[in-house]
Amino acid sequence: MDLKNLSVLELEEALGKEQKAYRKLQKKGVRVDMTRGRPGAKQLEIAMPMLEAAGSLPYQYDGGDARNYGDPAGIRPARELFAKLMDISPDMVIVSDGSSLEIMYDLVQFAMQFGVLGDTPWNKLDKVKFICPAPGYDRHFSICQTFGMDMITVPMLQDGPDMDLVEELVRADESVKGIWCVPKYSNPTGVVFSDKTVTRLAKLKPAAKDFRIFWDNAYIVHSLYDEDDKLKNIFDVAQKYGNEDMIYELVSTSKITFAGSGVAALGASEKNVQALLKLMFYKKINPNKVNQVMHVEFLKDVDNIKEIMAKHAELLRPKFELFQSKMSEAFSDWEEVKWSEPRGGYFISLDVSGAAKRTVELAAEAGIKLTAAGATFPYGIDDSNSNIRIAPSVPTLEEMSHAIDVLICSVRVALLEKHLGK
Amino acid sequence: MDLKNLSVLELEEALGKEQKAYRKLQKKGVRVDMTRGRPGAKQLEIAMPMLEAAGSLPYQYDGGDARNYGDPAGIRPARELFAKLMDISPDMVIVSDGSSLEIMYDLVQFAMQFGVLGDTPWNKLDKVKFICPAPGYDRHFSICQTFGMDMITVPMLQDGPDMDLVEELVRADESVKGIWCVPKYSNPTGVVFSDKTVTRLAKLKPAAKDFRIFWDNAYIVHSLYDEDDKLKNIFDVAQKYGNEDMIYELVSTSKITFAGSGVAALGASEKNVQALLKLMFYKKINPNKVNQVMHVEFLKDVDNIKEIMAKHAELLRPKFELFQSKMSEAFSDWEEVKWSEPRGGYFISLDVSGAAKRTVELAAEAGIKLTAAGATFPYGIDDSNSNIRIAPSVPTLEEMSHAIDVLICSVRVALLEKHLGK
Repeated sequence: MDLKNLSVLELEEALGKEQKAYRKLQKKGVRVDMTRGRPGAKQLEIAMPMLEAAGSLPYQYDGGDARNYGDPAGIRPARELFAKLMDISPDMVIVSDGSSLEIMYDLVQFAMQFGVLGDTPWNKLDKVKFICPAPGYDRHFSICQTFGMDMITVPMLQDGPDMDLVEELVRADESVKGIWCVPKYSNPTGVVFSDKTVTRLAKLKPAAKDFRIFWDNAYIVHSLYDEDDKLKNIFDVAQKYGNEDMIYELVSTSKITFAGSGVAALGASEKNVQALLKLMFYKKINPNKVNQVMHVEFLKDVDNIKEIMAKHAELLRPKFELFQSKMSEAFSDWEEVKWSEPRGGYFISLDVSGAAKRTVELAAEAGIKLTAAGATFPYGIDDSNSNIRIAPSVPTLEEMSHAIDVLICSVRVALLEKHLGK
Repeated sequence: MDLKNLSVLELEEALGKEQKAYRKLQKKGVRVDMTRGRPGAKQLEIAMPMLEAAGSLPYQYDGGDARNYGDPAGIRPARELFAKLMDISPDMVIVSDGSSLEIMYDLVQFAMQFGVLGDTPWNKLDKVKFICPAPGYDRHFSICQTFGMDMITVPMLQDGPDMDLVEELVRADESVKGIWCVPKYSNPTGVVFSDKTVTRLAKLKPAAKDFRIFWDNAYIVHSLYDEDDKLKNIFDVAQKYGNEDMIYELVSTSKITFAGSGVAALGASEKNVQALLKLMFYKKINPNKVNQVMHVEFLKDVDNIKEIMAKHAELLRPKFELFQSKMSEAFSDWEEVKWSEPRGGYFISLDVSGAAKRTVELAAEAGIKLTAAGATFPYGIDDSNSNIRIAPSVPTLEEMSHAIDVLICSVRVALLEKHLGK
């Protein structure tokens, strides 16, 4: 349906009908929080065997006791496991505590304070700029904000960031120091970077020697379906072009075991790893290695991780599919409503042309909390006021069903209001 | 014995005798590592019930699920427990991951990058100076070093740092921004700050508004004896003088549960806590809260913590007492050899007038690894080349007995060599 073709009378009539439906849904008083990509309650049970086994695990391992000080880079078995997951060598891995966000923040703070591999500390430069493919992950953008960096928005396309723009930006400007990427099941669009995009990123020729790709592989094993999407190994390509120092890869078990209480890991060239360990020496003795043993013993190997993730997918998939079927039914002929159909990750990206803010507002007033409109863009500014991030993981299927009904009504009311100039 | 009164012949004779004893001990080929304050193997078993219980704990608590995102300041029950331990209010507590060193480092880095409570970021100042009571904890000094701060050495006396000097320094110089303190069973001297010293610290009138006392209360419950030493609550005094924002208190369970895999906490004024939470927002979603539940359930309350610590004391005390008895026997009449008699903590401080480096070297050559001489002083420089830090926790009692014999021999050889001008 193209609302532009409707008369004012027809628009008013449709609005009245939708408002009535909206009030009816509102009256049910159901509250659903879909603001963040948090695992649902049932998902949290999946890793309980890890805790149940904690009392009788082999905490002594080659070279030490995980319950005592030592091993700032994490225990070797954990480095080996995450190396296999990222398909790189164990010497390229630092296994840390639970938060990959914290690793990214610390990497930026190290660069600001001490510089990257002997280069000028970013604090001493007039300007530091980061490329921010958008819509993207709000927590990436807020790191830029807290350090006072300039964010350059680049459109997120169907196969990754607009690489023509990215190539031009990094080649032309030495103050461009980084780019944020969620290369697989991207937050929030669900995009998987194509081989071509990965290759173009890996062979970038930045003006800045200390340019870094923050390869936030948060959804590396988070497929919703048996058949996983393949992401090209960026280190393999980078090595061919002598660019292996340019990449920081991040993974975490926040959505494999426990959110924020898992284990996070950095993948980087050995040169980067050695330099970072020198800086980290001053910061802490070691990460929580007891937790690392628990994780290694529970996760075992990549195949077993995939089996664990299949259990998560079983819980998540119906919610994602419910969204698709209800939205298709409601909006198949609405030109101004579009949404992603992700095959993994934690989000669906919804575009409601020029009516995102009002939609989120309406949903909230009917008890459905969505991520703030604009949050997926640098500075929280979505020029087209269109993008809404949907996080289906927390609600039960029943709550989800209600929440989508409210969302559908809210989208319709918001768009009809827009066309009526209200 | 005053070696100055001996003739060269007597000194040579004594040296020959000691060298013979030294070589005999060396031949045994026993290797003992006494470099760091690490818990011993038996101590690590004390907290195993915490892991054994992990499978069946109440991870859901008031306001959330510890296995999911949320609560950046830590779970409320953990904040309450650490508040009781520090005798402050729960709103003054942030419970973090395992490393109190990391909290201290982050506090300094926040101050460098963003400033303290709206003040000028330390990065923008020409000079930042920290007061370093010495001998002290080497990891405090290395934080100063990595950030390029000037360290001002102040002597550590029997009741804490030389407060006349400290008062003068902070009053006179706005670039003096902090002081490191281990107020109870100080590392390495074992000193407990007297009430008078605590009071003088709490009522300091620094020229710098953003001056901070880093109150590293690492050994808050780490008495070796049933009768604990009392440390005055610095916040109580500070509040009277409007100085409550001046204090950062740190505690951790590294030597209560597992070293580096425990839980660490910050105690600070609510104003500081709120400001820090705002900065921390950009850094991570939350600490490992599963580990916090495990700790809260295992530690229970302050009385139970003291019972746990009594088990640690039972294992540590004999090693400390063996040191005392053997050293007294060996050196009661040696004027140039002095050592501390701590009633808690992890270290004994040994002073060997002008012969520390040679003593450590000799001990190492006989298989006994000690902390590097000088490590307890800023820049690693002990002007009098006297102080050696002894960490008795790791060796078994048998190993400890051998290690002290080697140490005694090494001290004697080193001092005799010194007097012979060798």
